[in-house]
Amino acid sequence: MKKTKINIGIIGLGTVGKGVIKILHNIKDSIKIKTGGEIIIKKIVTRSPEKKISFDFPFDTNIISNNINDILNDNEIDIVVELIGGYEPARTYILDSLKKKKHVITANKAVLAKYWDEILSSAKENNCLLYFESSVGAGIPVIKGLNEGLSSNNIKMIYGILNGTTNYILTKMLNEKMSFDDCLKLAQENGFAEADPTFDIKGIDTAHKLAILASLAYQTNIKIDDVYIEGIDNINTYDINFAYEKLNLILKLLAITKKNNNEIELRVMPIFIPKNHLLSFVNNEYNGVYIIGDSIGEIMFYGKGAGELSAGSGVVSDILYVAKNIINETDRKSQFVSDNSNKINIMNINDINSSYYLHFEVKENIDALSKIIEILSNNNVSILLCYQNENFRENLSSIPIIITTNKALEKNIKLAIEQINKLPFITKNATIIRIEDKL
Amino acid sequence: MKKTKINIGIIGLGTVGKGVIKILHNIKDSIKIKTGGEIIIKKIVTRSPEKKISFDFPFDTNIISNNINDILNDNEIDIVVELIGGYEPARTYILDSLKKKKHVITANKAVLAKYWDEILSSAKENNCLLYFESSVGAGIPVIKGLNEGLSSNNIKMIYGILNGTTNYILTKMLNEKMSFDDCLKLAQENGFAEADPTFDIKGIDTAHKLAILASLAYQTNIKIDDVYIEGIDNINTYDINFAYEKLNLILKLLAITKKNNNEIELRVMPIFIPKNHLLSFVNNEYNGVYIIGDSIGEIMFYGKGAGELSAGSGVVSDILYVAKNIINETDRKSQFVSDNSNKINIMNINDINSSYYLHFEVKENIDALSKIIEILSNNNVSILLCYQNENFRENLSSIPIIITTNKALEKNIKLAIEQINKLPFITKNATIIRIEDKL
Repeated sequence: MKKTKINIGIIGLGTVGKGVIKILHNIKDSIKIKTGGEIIIKKIVTRSPEKKISFDFPFDTNIISNNINDILNDNEIDIVVELIGGYEPARTYILDSLKKKKHVITANKAVLAKYWDEILSSAKENNCLLYFESSVGAGIPVIKGLNEGLSSNNIKMIYGILNGTTNYILTKMLNEKMSFDDCLKLAQENGFAEADPTFDIKGIDTAHKLAILASLAYQTNIKIDDVYIEGIDNINTYDINFAYEKLNLILKLLAITKKNNNEIELRVMPIFIPKNHLLSFVNNEYNGVYIIGDSIGEIMFYGKGAGELSAGSGVVSDILYVAKNIINETDRKSQFVSDNSNKINIMNINDINSSYYLHFEVKENIDALSKIIEILSNNNVSILLCYQNENFRENLSSIPIIITTNKALEKNIKLAIEQINKLPFITKNATIIRIEDKL
Repeated sequence: MKKTKINIGIIGLGTVGKGVIKILHNIKDSIKIKTGGEIIIKKIVTRSPEKKISFDFPFDTNIISNNINDILNDNEIDIVVELIGGYEPARTYILDSLKKKKHVITANKAVLAKYWDEILSSAKENNCLLYFESSVGAGIPVIKGLNEGLSSNNIKMIYGILNGTTNYILTKMLNEKMSFDDCLKLAQENGFAEADPTFDIKGIDTAHKLAILASLAYQTNIKIDDVYIEGIDNINTYDINFAYEKLNLILKLLAITKKNNNEIELRVMPIFIPKNHLLSFVNNEYNGVYIIGDSIGEIMFYGKGAGELSAGSGVVSDILYVAKNIINETDRKSQFVSDNSNKINIMNINDINSSYYLHFEVKENIDALSKIIEILSNNNVSILLCYQNENFRENLSSIPIIITTNKALEKNIKLAIEQINKLPFITKNATIIRIEDKL
């Protein structure tokens, strides 16, 4: 007899967990139409059950416990929904669930970016489905889009604004001309940044998401450690506003991957992009994923990248999809990710080719500009534009020199900057920001 | 024994057909990784086989014929790919293929918009898969996104720029200040409009696509006849440019559906939207689908809405997906569209509430404006702004009066305009364009 009651166990009752519960309650009348059956939350496991029912909980609170075995050892639970985030114990819970032949849905980018191969292999071995739409861009269906909708394409590049916190901060630094620290505080006050924002502002959260997108795009196994990462915590408001006004550029924390033959670039960093590019209109807490495929050309997905209901949206869509598969008895015969065995070389960051925005601070010195340019030239860095802004001083004894370059090798830039930073008239280390002007 | 060689039959060797063949050839090395098997084009049926091999055809030309039965009666063909477009014989070919238990992939929005229920029912009855990603927005995975990625949402509204031809024309009318006729010619020269552009410029193509999106969004059966349609052939360059410069509005041919309780709006028309809305950056031949769901909030899909490879991209992704299902032996157990039995009321166009842009042409007459405003007021239409442009004359004896309104009922606007058009100083019928300012 066909199974039509699907039991799920939810691990974690934080922001996303609450969203999932609210949505499942909201759409309860249409679940039958969408899946052919019923979805029942059989157990919710959370560290401190007593603390967590601060919202209007629409189910019997008896289903909440603090013991993971209440889910793992319940043979009636078909789907485990992991929403605690982080590496451990999430990894163990996911692997244990799969071993118990339970399908797994997760919104956890960290665990996937670190244990991609292990988790995918275990899902395959145990004939379990593994879905993770909300791990990147919350409910924006970019994971399914990339893995299925664009499967006919060789993916040439992905540029992603994947972190709402940093995008909110950068938007405010431009629009309100506020400092990084003030914008971070504002983001925290408005619920767009966590108390400890390290993972966000250092680019690690974005890198987790990039690892997942690149693994899917190239059918391979990219790990967080493969990604070169720079955060936005050293960015200053002057550069953002100067580049916007004088150079028509906007600063975004971008996840970038590009493929040339069998080699890929893989990096997360603050990057200047043209003001009129579609990604430049992805502001505040929104995410945008811009993809170029060899058939589809350019394509972009846009939406809220975080939040209770937006993240919950992706998780519940995954639940409906897996439930439908169980009801149709197709759940043990397919895998969402077909293969991750492609071997791909990852380019060393020093070998990338880019244009650069360079900001030097110098003591008043008639020769400063020529010396700087000479060193850049000696290192094969060709200058596009330079600007000596005597009207703007960080302090009384310092003048900014802004230089943008034509395409140059990262290693040459670094060599040049190392020498320039040692010049006697330099008052502080140079700021280096890459420019993607041919987007 | 598991089947690993999937045979497909392609009907139609026009733009999309060529794209499909090229892409299948391009990605042949990764098909195994993506599906677990092989895909073989076993037959191509086209009306005039001899004429069609004008491109570098990568397969044996023996597979091309002009007899549909070569596909229908070939028991080894698993998937039929219908790419001829139009209502008939496409409908018959699709239904006949399904009766023969062949899975169907189509890019044909017209046939789906007209025979949605018949085709879906037949697919269900015959346990066949039916996929149609390229029927809306070419390869942009909006169909899968809406039907699966956003399945956890009650869809509140969809605003779509779904036709590349008209979007190209409107973009040029604004940017180059050229007339509609000249822009249409330019579009034809550049391959963005067909020799007979009626379906595009009259909004019918957009309405076909809207019917499909709305059917999926509300799990119902919307037909092309349910959609209220106005095209862009009466739009003039003056209004586009006036609204852009003075009112910060951009004109787009939009497909709109909105849901309130169990009633939906369903209309295709040229609409002014705010200059700074993300949809305003969807220019030239590009498409954008902007969706608001009750969980996800706002989301947008963007990409090329037509063209050999972009349309081919969606079709081939569908082929890979269905092939994977056949190889996994899950193809007879599921349906892409779960249900289309929801009953929904469609709002009469006269009952919609909107803001309006009105353009009157009057003979020089000191009372004209007050008379017009009086009639609008008498019909419960409240004016937001009015502008009497004496500097611009269509001809020596005519002055334009532009009025924008606050929210008003469509039927009241029509009553008012009917009266105004009869006033003695009016030189031609008024132009009425809706404004969506609260996007």
